[in-house]
Amino acid sequence: MPDTSLLEAFPAPTAVGEEPLVIEHVSEEFTSVCPKTGHPDFGTVTLRYQPGASRGACVELKSLKLYYQSFRNEGIFYEAVTHRIRSDLVALMSPAWLQIVTSWRGRGGIQSVIRADHGLVPAHYLGR
Amino acid sequence: MPDTSLLEAFPAPTAVGEEPLVIEHVSEEFTSVCPKTGHPDFGTVTLRYQPGASRGACVELKSLKLYYQSFRNEGIFYEAVTHRIRSDLVALMSPAWLQIVTSWRGRGGIQSVIRADHGLVPAHYLGR
Amino acid sequence: MPDTSLLEAFPAPTAVGEEPLVIEHVSEEFTSVCPKTGHPDFGTVTLRYQPGASRGACVELKSLKLYYQSFRNEGIFYEAVTHRIRSDLVALMSPAWLQIVTSWRGRGGIQSVIRADHGLVPAHYLGR
Amino acid sequence: MPDTSLLEAFPAPTAVGEEPLVIEHVSEEFTSVCPKTGHPDFGTVTLRYQPGASRGACVELKSLKLYYQSFRNEGIFYEAVTHRIRSDLVALMSPAWLQIVTSWRGRGGIQSVIRADHGLVPAHYLGR
Amino acid sequence: MPDTSLLEAFPAPTAVGEEPLVIEHVSEEFTSVCPKTGHPDFGTVTLRYQPGASRGACVELKSLKLYYQSFRNEGIFYEAVTHRIRSDLVALMSPAWLQIVTSWRGRGGIQSVIRADHGLVPAHYLGR
Amino acid sequence: MPDTSLLEAFPAPTAVGEEPLVIEHVSEEFTSVCPKTGHPDFGTVTLRYQPGASRGACVELKSLKLYYQSFRNEGIFYEAVTHRIRSDLVALMSPAWLQIVTSWRGRGGIQSVIRADHGLVPAHYLGR
Amino acid sequence: MPDTSLLEAFPAPTAVGEEPLVIEHVSEEFTSVCPKTGHPDFGTVTLRYQPGASRGACVELKSLKLYYQSFRNEGIFYEAVTHRIRSDLVALMSPAWLQIVTSWRGRGGIQSVIRADHGLVPAHYLGR
Amino acid sequence: MPDTSLLEAFPAPTAVGEEPLVIEHVSEEFTSVCPKTGHPDFGTVTLRYQPGASRGACVELKSLKLYYQSFRNEGIFYEAVTHRIRSDLVALMSPAWLQIVTSWRGRGGIQSVIRADHGLVPAHYLGR
Amino acid sequence: MPDTSLLEAFPAPTAVGEEPLVIEHVSEEFTSVCPKTGHPDFGTVTLRYQPGASRGACVELKSLKLYYQSFRNEGIFYEAVTHRIRSDLVALMSPAWLQIVTSWRGRGGIQSVIRADHGLVPAHYLGR
Amino acid sequence: MPDTSLLEAFPAPTAVGEEPLVIEHVSEEFTSVCPKTGHPDFGTVTLRYQPGASRGACVELKSLKLYYQSFRNEGIFYEAVTHRIRSDLVALMSPAWLQIVTSWRGRGGIQSVIRADHGLVPAHYLGR
Repeated sequence: MPDTSLLEAFPAPTAVGEEPLVIEHVSEEFTSVCPKTGHPDFGTVTLRYQPGASRGACVELKSLKLYYQSFRNEGIFYEAVTHRIRSDLVALMSPAWLQIVTSWRGRGGIQSVIRADHGLVPAHYLGR
Repeated sequence: MPDTSLLEAFPAPTAVGEEPLVIEHVSEEFTSVCPKTGHPDFGTVTLRYQPGASRGACVELKSLKLYYQSFRNEGIFYEAVTHRIRSDLVALMSPAWLQIVTSWRGRGGIQSVIRADHGLVPAHYLGR
Repeated sequence: MPDTSLLEAFPAPTAVGEEPLVIEHVSEEFTSVCPKTGHPDFGTVTLRYQPGASRGACVELKSLKLYYQSFRNEGIFYEAVTHRIRSDLVALMSPAWLQIVTSWRGRGGIQSVIRADHGLVPAHYLGR
Repeated sequence: MPDTSLLEAFPAPTAVGEEPLVIEHVSEEFTSVCPKTGHPDFGTVTLRYQPGASRGACVELKSLKLYYQSFRNEGIFYEAVTHRIRSDLVALMSPAWLQIVTSWRGRGGIQSVIRADHGLVPAHYLGR
Repeated sequence: MPDTSLLEAFPAPTAVGEEPLVIEHVSEEFTSVCPKTGHPDFGTVTLRYQPGASRGACVELKSLKLYYQSFRNEGIFYEAVTHRIRSDLVALMSPAWLQIVTSWRGRGGIQSVIRADHGLVPAHYLGR
Repeated sequence: MPDTSLLEAFPAPTAVGEEPLVIEHVSEEFTSVCPKTGHPDFGTVTLRYQPGASRGACVELKSLKLYYQSFRNEGIFYEAVTHRIRSDLVALMSPAWLQIVTSWRGRGGIQSVIRADHGLVPAHYLGR
Repeated sequence: MPDTSLLEAFPAPTAVGEEPLVIEHVSEEFTSVCPKTGHPDFGTVTLRYQPGASRGACVELKSLKLYYQSFRNEGIFYEAVTHRIRSDLVALMSPAWLQIVTSWRGRGGIQSVIRADHGLVPAHYLGR
Repeated sequence: MPDTSLLEAFPAPTAVGEEPLVIEHVSEEFTSVCPKTGHPDFGTVTLRYQPGASRGACVELKSLKLYYQSFRNEGIFYEAVTHRIRSDLVALMSPAWLQIVTSWRGRGGIQSVIRADHGLVPAHYLGR
Repeated sequence: MPDTSLLEAFPAPTAVGEEPLVIEHVSEEFTSVCPKTGHPDFGTVTLRYQPGASRGACVELKSLKLYYQSFRNEGIFYEAVTHRIRSDLVALMSPAWLQIVTSWRGRGGIQSVIRADHGLVPAHYLGR
Repeated sequence: MPDTSLLEAFPAPTAVGEEPLVIEHVSEEFTSVCPKTGHPDFGTVTLRYQPGASRGACVELKSLKLYYQSFRNEGIFYEAVTHRIRSDLVALMSPAWLQIVTSWRGRGGIQSVIRADHGLVPAHYLGR
């Protein structure tokens, strides 16, 4: 079962007056189970976020990995996985901006990508 | 014959106050028939859309696959395929934004890409 | 000799109130002759356009191929090829927007790309 | 230990009235040590900047390489590496714009990219 | 020695009322010499420009190649190469817009890209 | 239904005393139907062969294309497709050597390649 | 638990006097669990085999997929996975030749490939 | 018309007791005309050869280019192009070994590769 | 200092009468120091081996990683690194066959690959 | 002028009874001048060799780089460059086996690869 108690945060290194960092973590080893067919789904989860101003919260990398692993035997749809990860990480970090992109190895010849945004993309990050 | 009765929808998981998801389904196994020559055409169909606000409609993945398969022996031009899929999916989902991109393996040394938009691209999705 | 009489058009499938399609045809088999050296030039010609509103004109694919083939033994510079194709297709279709990009396999270690625009890029097509 | 005394600057070649250059240096051979596990981290550091107007400062390439090498046996997190390099290079050059992007070979199946900006991206450089 | 007398121009084919072309020439065979170490440097030089309105000047391709070859045994830094090519080609063509991007095969594990702009990027060319 | 009457042959151009050619035709547009699920299968069919000595038979390219198209609505397994094409082309051409390789876009996350040989690979073709 | 009772076989289509097929199934969605750390492992399993002469046994594709899925929550090393799959499939099919190649997404910066052969590679398949 | 009078040879630099060179020239700009449809064909011609022992003949590169260009408006099939180039170059050079591989951009969704060998592949060149 | 006491072995899972496995471990995170210049070297180390017959020794993966890390601050040439790893792993495992391939990111524009073999490549592994 | 006095050798680390290493150095920054046209040629030079038995000679890497640089302004054909490098390095090292492969960026649309061997390829290195 997806387990948010696994998630841990730490303060960003940026100080007052410095532009907060933009952080991306890409996990290519995500797997859950299709609630309809019972077959496993495999995907990549990309997290991008900008912590809140001065000393905002960052998610600790190993805790993120364990949290993702807690979906392993969960029956859950693509859209719900994406929505849930966004909700859990926004609750953890209260970021200035956050984006979750899940990209799934196809089923029946169709590949899917689901994207969930929270807040505004930092202006200097557009068109990067 | 393209058969819209195959299409099914379900409500998106996002609630009031949450930014709706952006969803992409790429089908690399589309085939129809050229009405002029009778030879088969092969292409990739990309669907991108953003459901309407709070609990908007999403297209069910297996129903989408069966709908695409219903073009298999239809004699129909590239432009008309693209136009028809846009019309049928807009009618099904009333999305906030929808985009169909069909990309065709060439004929006579020319590859073609046809794109049909409906509504405005979400601002945070531009230049992704 | 480049022969515009080969070009044919047909009306787009979009109706009043629908966003016109954006259409791309890529021909990787273009060849003409350098007027200075007499050696053949090889390139790719990309055509992108948006027909005019409701039932605007589209270029017929086979006629486009034959038109391109009519440059085969013509002595003509890169810039003039690009300019001429733009002129001929604008005259044929009166499109809302049109773009010709010719991309040439190098001469003397230099690869060239020439681009000719007509009208404004559709807003939703920028940064695609 | 990261050693800023290794860094050297020289004046840019651009004169009054000329648009300053935009300069990018990509180092694919960055390594430091994870302070938690003691295992080495490997990454790529990309520096992009625009010197200040007329004869602004540029970082000398060999001095940059030696400065990066001074992190080799330092126990330091991804975010702190990125933050520190930004601080040190801004202090050295007072650039009009500067961007540090560190891209890390994964740990536990997760690849990370950290980005730190200083100042505004030059308008003509957006969407390059 | 870089020799601008090698450069030749010719008038663009576009007439009054037509959007000027955008032209790109990529030379992957540029070499000069590092003034510090005496070792050869190897790079790619990309020139992009838009001639001035109606019948603006274009650089002749073979003359450009010979001009680039004239740097072969010149001791000159990356930044200065880029700056000089911009100056020489702006002087030759008085273009509406011009951009030089030099991209260098690394030294000591660092690859560099230097970019010099002159004038404003044509609006329809942004995010191409 | 697979229809061998569509296949036509012509004599190879090689004369007595000349090494026969080795010929490869790759068709990336093969489709048939899974007899179990009724869903379409998509694959690539590669034919490689060496005609018999002096003026041996070659398959005519357009006839091969039409023959492949005759599988379009046939319910048939991967292994049987491969076996049948080998049988039909060996019967048509009596080649010195022939090889059929069918490569299928996955089902349920598994991609398959089936290979059928007839006769000995020409010695000079091994390890090509 | 790896469950061989899921595996099913069917007779190959080749008859007496015909060269048996060579069959490859690549599954990019294999996952098991490291018995030492409890963390999931992700890999690709490639099966290649040649059935025994005339009407030898072939593994049924869906049964193979379910068999692979039965490793999902099994604690087992790379080498043992590879060894066990070889044993189970040899017992099922008694093939003329069989090869298992497991390719694993790294741990601690090391990617591993394990290969297990049974019988002799068909002569015409070497150096393919 | 293919014109062998354009071909020129020169003696290889290797002396008695030295292993002759192996030489490869790849021309990606070959075009001829399909005698059936009148449409142009585009392909790549690869020539590989080993001159005869001590001071054997090599084909001069520019003369090879002009010879290839002489096929430009010739109506001729893939197999005949390959066969003819082999014959003409064997007649010119009497090489120890020669191989012609023509690779054609598809027609009707089928790509073709035709190979013609003369003499034995040098032992040390196999499996290169 | 390279430290062989870090290396651990375990018995292979194969029993009497079974073909031993072939095992490959690729580490893309190797670094040592050039003894001449004091600058760090970066490379990839590929280990391939076949354990001795029935229950031969395998190197434990984490111990291999720690052993490689022990070269981090060692001044040692490419050839000596390769030679030493071969010697240490042969001493540890007494394999039927072993191969070390080190591949180095260039210095001064030259990339190097060094290969050390021990024993005969398994016949079925040639030309894989 | 190509200058063999720049070349230096050192003894290989392998001892009696050990299989000699196989060493590859790839230089992607080779340039010389075409003696016919005076234009620069650019290529990649790959050297592969196996030193003679026990403590055979290896070429020192920096000396190899300087030797290659000495061709910079030399007018010399592709075949002669390849032949000369083979002769000079065989004279320096008396290797068990040596191979030079020069690969040239095209002229007039033709890319060339020239290969010169000396001695027999090590058996375990074939088909690597």
